[in-house]
Amino acid sequence: MSSSGGPKDPILLKSSMTKKPHRAAAPMIAVDRGSEKPLHRQIYDAFRAMILDRRLESGQQIPSTRALADELGISRIPVLDAYAQLLAEGYIESRSGAGTFVKRSLSDQFPSVRPTARSVLSHPGNEAISRLARLLPVERTPWFPSSGAFSVGQIAYDHFPFRVWSDLVTRHVRKVRVSSMNYADPMGSKEFREVIAVYLRTARAVRCDASQIMIVSGSQHALDLSARVLLESDIPVWIEEPGYELLRHTLLLSGCRLVPVPVDSEGLDVAAGMSLCRIARAAFVTPSHQYPLGATMSAARRLQLLEWAHRHNAWIVEDDYDSEYRYESMPVASMQGLDPGLRVIYIGTFSKTLFPSLRLGYIVIPPPLIAHFLAVRRANDLFPSHLYQAALADFIEAGHFTRHIRKTRQLYAERRNALAQALRKEFGSEIEILGAEAGMHLVVTLPPGHSDQKIAARAAQDGLWLWPLSTAYNGPSVRQGFILGFGGTRAADMLHQVRRLRKAIRESGNDA
Amino acid sequence: MSSSGGPKDPILLKSSMTKKPHRAAAPMIAVDRGSEKPLHRQIYDAFRAMILDRRLESGQQIPSTRALADELGISRIPVLDAYAQLLAEGYIESRSGAGTFVKRSLSDQFPSVRPTARSVLSHPGNEAISRLARLLPVERTPWFPSSGAFSVGQIAYDHFPFRVWSDLVTRHVRKVRVSSMNYADPMGSKEFREVIAVYLRTARAVRCDASQIMIVSGSQHALDLSARVLLESDIPVWIEEPGYELLRHTLLLSGCRLVPVPVDSEGLDVAAGMSLCRIARAAFVTPSHQYPLGATMSAARRLQLLEWAHRHNAWIVEDDYDSEYRYESMPVASMQGLDPGLRVIYIGTFSKTLFPSLRLGYIVIPPPLIAHFLAVRRANDLFPSHLYQAALADFIEAGHFTRHIRKTRQLYAERRNALAQALRKEFGSEIEILGAEAGMHLVVTLPPGHSDQKIAARAAQDGLWLWPLSTAYNGPSVRQGFILGFGGTRAADMLHQVRRLRKAIRESGNDA
Repeated sequence: MSSSGGPKDPILLKSSMTKKPHRAAAPMIAVDRGSEKPLHRQIYDAFRAMILDRRLESGQQIPSTRALADELGISRIPVLDAYAQLLAEGYIESRSGAGTFVKRSLSDQFPSVRPTARSVLSHPGNEAISRLARLLPVERTPWFPSSGAFSVGQIAYDHFPFRVWSDLVTRHVRKVRVSSMNYADPMGSKEFREVIAVYLRTARAVRCDASQIMIVSGSQHALDLSARVLLESDIPVWIEEPGYELLRHTLLLSGCRLVPVPVDSEGLDVAAGMSLCRIARAAFVTPSHQYPLGATMSAARRLQLLEWAHRHNAWIVEDDYDSEYRYESMPVASMQGLDPGLRVIYIGTFSKTLFPSLRLGYIVIPPPLIAHFLAVRRANDLFPSHLYQAALADFIEAGHFTRHIRKTRQLYAERRNALAQALRKEFGSEIEILGAEAGMHLVVTLPPGHSDQKIAARAAQDGLWLWPLSTAYNGPSVRQGFILGFGGTRAADMLHQVRRLRKAIRESGNDA
Repeated sequence: MSSSGGPKDPILLKSSMTKKPHRAAAPMIAVDRGSEKPLHRQIYDAFRAMILDRRLESGQQIPSTRALADELGISRIPVLDAYAQLLAEGYIESRSGAGTFVKRSLSDQFPSVRPTARSVLSHPGNEAISRLARLLPVERTPWFPSSGAFSVGQIAYDHFPFRVWSDLVTRHVRKVRVSSMNYADPMGSKEFREVIAVYLRTARAVRCDASQIMIVSGSQHALDLSARVLLESDIPVWIEEPGYELLRHTLLLSGCRLVPVPVDSEGLDVAAGMSLCRIARAAFVTPSHQYPLGATMSAARRLQLLEWAHRHNAWIVEDDYDSEYRYESMPVASMQGLDPGLRVIYIGTFSKTLFPSLRLGYIVIPPPLIAHFLAVRRANDLFPSHLYQAALADFIEAGHFTRHIRKTRQLYAERRNALAQALRKEFGSEIEILGAEAGMHLVVTLPPGHSDQKIAARAAQDGLWLWPLSTAYNGPSVRQGFILGFGGTRAADMLHQVRRLRKAIRESGNDA
């Protein structure tokens, strides 16, 4: 057989596993019969180097001498010699009946010789990464990620219908089919997309069919793919001010120019946007429940934004991340459904209605853009995993999804009420409450003189996770406050948690 | 409670579900008591519009009159009137005992009034998408995706240990824990990363610990994240010529300038690269098993490439997509393990060793870049799903993974041998076979005068999926041939399939 060649140097041999235990994965050993260095020395050197730079870990099993000799196709004698030397020098140890192991606690006795970050960091070339990637903040702030009382994005985990869900997943994982293991459509599973299309047409008044729906891993993924299809360097894009912080990161990676457009009680101020920058490539909005302040975009503003988009060939990216939860009126129809001209990209997620680690969401794509979304998605991560799509399609079809939303809508309404009452009781008119009509968070604003980030950093030390409102602003004009998630906190616990919040704020006041 | 306001227009009400059946999701109905239009007319209009533009589908159930009246908080009389009119006009139908439904086969009787692609396509602004996204090809070629005899990336599905795997997944899906449902580390699960680190250090001679490992959804995702962290517009980047087509798409999205560097029997020709473009930001390579031609990069070339990277502060992205399968010698150690200076980003995947729809792979990130990878990953899709990570960590820990690789290595060797023998038997010296030492594909080259894309397009009509070698080339100098996957085809079936291939080639010869 013709060959395209191989390495010209000592062949790197991989010893096979001994029959038991299977846990001892096979180390890479280089042996070269033509070398002047004797075989036992080659084996000794190889093991010593692997142990010293911790490719073999303290306590890890190594093959028996017989197994290694068989594998390397050499006599057992040089292997016995090498092991004897390693034993004598304290690199390995025998345990009778169990086998041979890298000596435990060896890692404390000598420093790792693995290269340190210094060798690159001290190098003038360490800046050789993307200018755009460098724009993203790299520190983790104390309030991200978190899972405490007011953490944003938390759900009522203990009310999720686990039994039903795990039965569905189990049923699908036991179905052995090539089509569910193979590479698949970058748009997602056909059955799942059909089910989502019916749901969106009916419950969210979205105009769509399954061919327009792409399954993604959540609204962040949907925003990122949309940005990559639509945007590019130096193109102006409208965003809400204040808005969703991680949307800004995604947009920064595209190199576009952010135009923060203020929001008021009717949502995005379209007239303000036009006076700031009349022509933009796109507007990223949350019309059902503005993030974070909570306004519902009025019909007049919706029509105004659609008209702007049509006039200037701009795209509207509608992030409908939590509209299933609305308390004081019934759910508001999607903006996408009002658009006669295919300018709206509609985004939704199951992170809030089911649970975040599901990693399932969707994009409703205007038909002329489908091929471009497909190409970008393929370049990003090929296609979505099968199992959860199949299970969730059944979960929705069988009515569990609407039942769960109905149940949790009432639950979150109770939690919302308890939080609002506790805030009124503890703070009176000292703070303002915004956006409590929908979703799983509300916003409280702080009186002048407080720094929300300072309070949050301090509160985090006491295990109280507060998301500062100021981080939602892009520009210099910033309101201080907190975005308080209430989805994961029981109504009965709310007063206690609000008292902790009050204590954190008071203590900060004493500092000032 | 203070409020940030709501819509100023007729409130959109969502009717709740009737108690049964749960499948009838609740349509959006707008009613406005203050309107001059009577309530029954508002309800009639709303249903008619939803049916006409197919937001309600033919055959879909609608709520009972009683349920809708309750939900809207109005008397049942206007609802009965509206339904009577819809019935009379043939929009809906009653089925005794079952309920009320949108009339079946209605969709054939009138055209959809949904906006068509034309309204955007005919618009001068339809070009308003990313210049970079536009560089990606949008047509689906007949050979992608596929699952036939020679389809690339196919595995031996029927040899996967399903029972063990589905038991592990089932065990984890039944574990109810907040930590497995909540938002999580963008790097992936700690336990899974620890297990991968041990595997890579031992079996692939990678220098790493768990803190450097990011879990992604496969090697495509790893390549894309790497490109977004490292690259940017107009920066030169070395790629292999020929090479992996979807890597080119990812790199095109970053805006970088592709420098195709020829490969020979020792892998990437580093000297040729330096004479083409001495200074580049990165080199994307497949040193263990060059894709598609199959060469193993020689030690001399590896050291030469590492030296180049250090001298010019360039990055090496090592895509080690299928090195577990090596037949004529033992597995070759990773290039990353040879690098003393943290210039190598190492990428691997479980798509080949387990199955593609698992969507799990990993990146080993040099420590100084971890924070940047994290920031980009968060902006892309936040973090990976939990379930499969947990199941796969157990699968590897319990030794099933190494056992499965050992078993399939033998199986794929048999399939490889059968394919090579059949090719020799049917084609003799007419074709050349390349890269059969490793992996799950080999390459055959065609004699002059054949067009691989024409043959592939014709063969696809007969259900034979052939991946043309010419698509792997970026530049104008192209070899004609096919990349033949053998992982999914039984040895006993190989001769038959090769005869089909021969027939396809002969028929194309007759055309010429």
